[in-house]
Order: sequence, then structure tokens, then C-alpha cells
Amino acid sequence: MDFWFEFGSPYSYLSSMRLPALAQQAGMAVNYRPFLLGPIFQQQGWNDSPFVLYPAKGAYMWKDMAREAAKYGLPFRRPTVFPRWAILPSRIALAHKDAPWIATFVQAVMQLNFVHDRDIDNETAMREVLQALDLRPQTEHIIRLAQSYGIKQQLREQTARAQALGMFGAPNFIVNDEMFWGNDRLTDALNFVPSFAPTSDQSRTILGESL
Amino acid sequence: MDFWFEFGSPYSYLSSMRLPALAQQAGMAVNYRPFLLGPIFQQQGWNDSPFVLYPAKGAYMWKDMAREAAKYGLPFRRPTVFPRWAILPSRIALAHKDAPWIATFVQAVMQLNFVHDRDIDNETAMREVLQALDLRPQTEHIIRLAQSYGIKQQLREQTARAQALGMFGAPNFIVNDEMFWGNDRLTDALNFVPSFAPTSDQSRTILGESL
Repeated sequence: MDFWFEFGSPYSYLSSMRLPALAQQAGMAVNYRPFLLGPIFQQQGWNDSPFVLYPAKGAYMWKDMAREAAKYGLPFRRPTVFPRWAILPSRIALAHKDAPWIATFVQAVMQLNFVHDRDIDNETAMREVLQALDLRPQTEHIIRLAQSYGIKQQLREQTARAQALGMFGAPNFIVNDEMFWGNDRLTDALNFVPSFAPTSDQSRTILGESL
Repeated sequence: MDFWFEFGSPYSYLSSMRLPALAQQAGMAVNYRPFLLGPIFQQQGWNDSPFVLYPAKGAYMWKDMAREAAKYGLPFRRPTVFPRWAILPSRIALAHKDAPWIATFVQAVMQLNFVHDRDIDNETAMREVLQALDLRPQTEHIIRLAQSYGIKQQLREQTARAQALGMFGAPNFIVNDEMFWGNDRLTDALNFVPSFAPTSDQSRTILGESL
């Protein structure tokens, strides 16, 4: 499963907390795919989060988030700044998407934003998270790498790819090219079995077995 | 439970089909509350459904609807006209919100739109639905009543009330003043138990009992 998320997105927080245990139960590997919603919102003609632009929608979302967090037994405090910028943590996550600590890093940053109401788009916050993950020796290297041209460019490309895949919000889950949007679809995505559409190779195998 | 729905709303179709059996299981009575999304969308600055205005969101929604309908074992065909106007059926539903046939009427109109791909905002379609519900003797009266000034005014007021309640889409479920938006929240709404927040009357009773 590809897990496309935004550190500023409330429902991405819920999914990032639920995902590791659920994916393990389902026996599914998770690829972490951080991206930025800002450029995607701009493309839709929005200069801010739709939760800010449409107050009725925003008011409902905060109520729903509190209920949903309680439903899943997760701590939650409404951030005083919304949406929070998350360029530096996104670059770090992208540069280390295959690191053994990626799931824990994503959860720690999400909790900083949605539980501790702290800004996340700065070096101080990132140092704190990385050091808490026992990555003290590598911390400065990780931060410098995240600010390199190559990683900046990779995040721009990843966001363009999100848009090309038809994403308009977060989180999104992709399983066998099938896209699911929203924390509400996480278990559907984990349970997704593609409809039977045999490729020529599969047909041959099946025919071979039945003959 | 108050069930606020729009005949043109795809996810309202899913809820209208699922609701009667689920509400009965939960032992909860349902009040049918038809309203119009058009004026609510206009208030947000949208001159059409957001599924039309934002193509990526719309494309995803149709895919999601097909998957969701399959998940719930419901027939579904993407309407060739979207969103379909539904003023006449909404007026009929409002005028007969307490009729014993209201749940079946709502389902029949929804199916006309989302299974049979038929226009619903005309007398011919409504006659067909009402007659199929064994309401032939009353059919002409029901249609004339729906076109009366009083009912037109009531639907305007109901839509204004939806907006005052903070609605920005459909369906919505209200249980003990708690609003839930979207077919995805139907079971949460049915399971909703208000947090304990004693009024002075309740406190007195509880103290009286424990003393």
C-alpha cells in the first residue's frame, strides 16, 4: 500500500496513528508518500485549506475530528494554527521513506501538531523529534540532507505526481492502482482485492492448472 | 434521528437504502427531512455541485460510489445528468414526511435517479412512483398539494434551517442535537450516546436517588 499523507492534514494524523498496526494485521507493506496539499489546493483555485475557506465545513470537521479521535482512542487537541506548514518534515520523511523509523517519525511529527499544538516546520522541532527517536548522531545530517536541492526537487515531483494521480485531499491509500481517499477508507483499502481481470500470463497459469 | 437528505445527492441514495433496516435494529425512529443543496452551495459561492466544479473530486466520487454501492450490495448506475433537480419530489416528501410510505417513496425516487438514470423532477415520474406505491387514488391530490404555496414555502424554510444548522452537504443525521455528515457516519449516528452533561434537573434526580 502507498500511504499518501500531509503533515498538516487532520485526517492524515488519524490514519498515521492507525496504519502500522492495521497494515501488520493485514500483512500489507506500507510505502510512506509525503506530499504537499498547498499546490494541489491552489490548482483547484483555493488559496487556503477548504476547511478555512468554507467555515461551515471547517466547523463540522473539528467536531468530527474530536469524535473520530475518541472513537479510535487517540489523543487530539485542535491546533491553534491551521493548516500548519510542513515543508521541512515532509522533506525529511521523503528522504528517509524507507528508513526503519519512518512510521514512528511520521507519528511523532503528527502528534506534535495535533496533540501538542506545536509548530513543525522548523529545525528546532525536527531536532527534538529526531533526538527522541534515538537518532542524535544523524540528526544534523538528516536536517541538512532535507534542505538539499535534490530532496526539494523530489518533494516537488512527488506533489506533482499526487496531482497526476487525481488527489485533491489527504490521506490517500493506493492498493494495486486503486485509490482510496480519506481515513474513513483505510480498512476498505487494506481489504481491497482487485476484481478478477486476467492478464494473458494469469490466464495461461489458470488454464494450465485446470487442464 | 433526523435524516436530512437531497434527492440529487449520491451518498444520500446510499443512506436512504440502508437506513430503514439499520434504524429498526437500533430501535431508533427516523424523521425524514428533505432539503435542497442548491441554495446551500450558492451560499458557499458555488454555482454547481462541488463534484462538478472540482473535476478530480468528482471523478473520485463516482469511483467511490460504485465501490460503496457494491460494498452495501446496492444497485447503482452513474446518472447521465448530474446533479438532477429534485424540487417536486422534495416537496412531496416534505408534505408527507410522516406518511407510512415516506421511507419507500424516498427509496423509489432515489432508485429512479441512481439506478434507472431517470429524471425525477417532473409530474410523470412522480405519478409513476406514487402509483407503484399503491397510492393511485391520492396521486393527483399529492402532486397538487406539493405545488401549493404553503409547501413551497415550507421547503424554502427547511433549506434555510439546514443552513442554519451548519449543513454544507448531504446526507446529515442529527441525534440529540449532534450532527453527523455523510453516509460514512450513519452507524456512528445510530450508535451515538450523548456525553453525560447533567442539567440541574438530572442532577437533582441523581442526587435524590443516591441519598
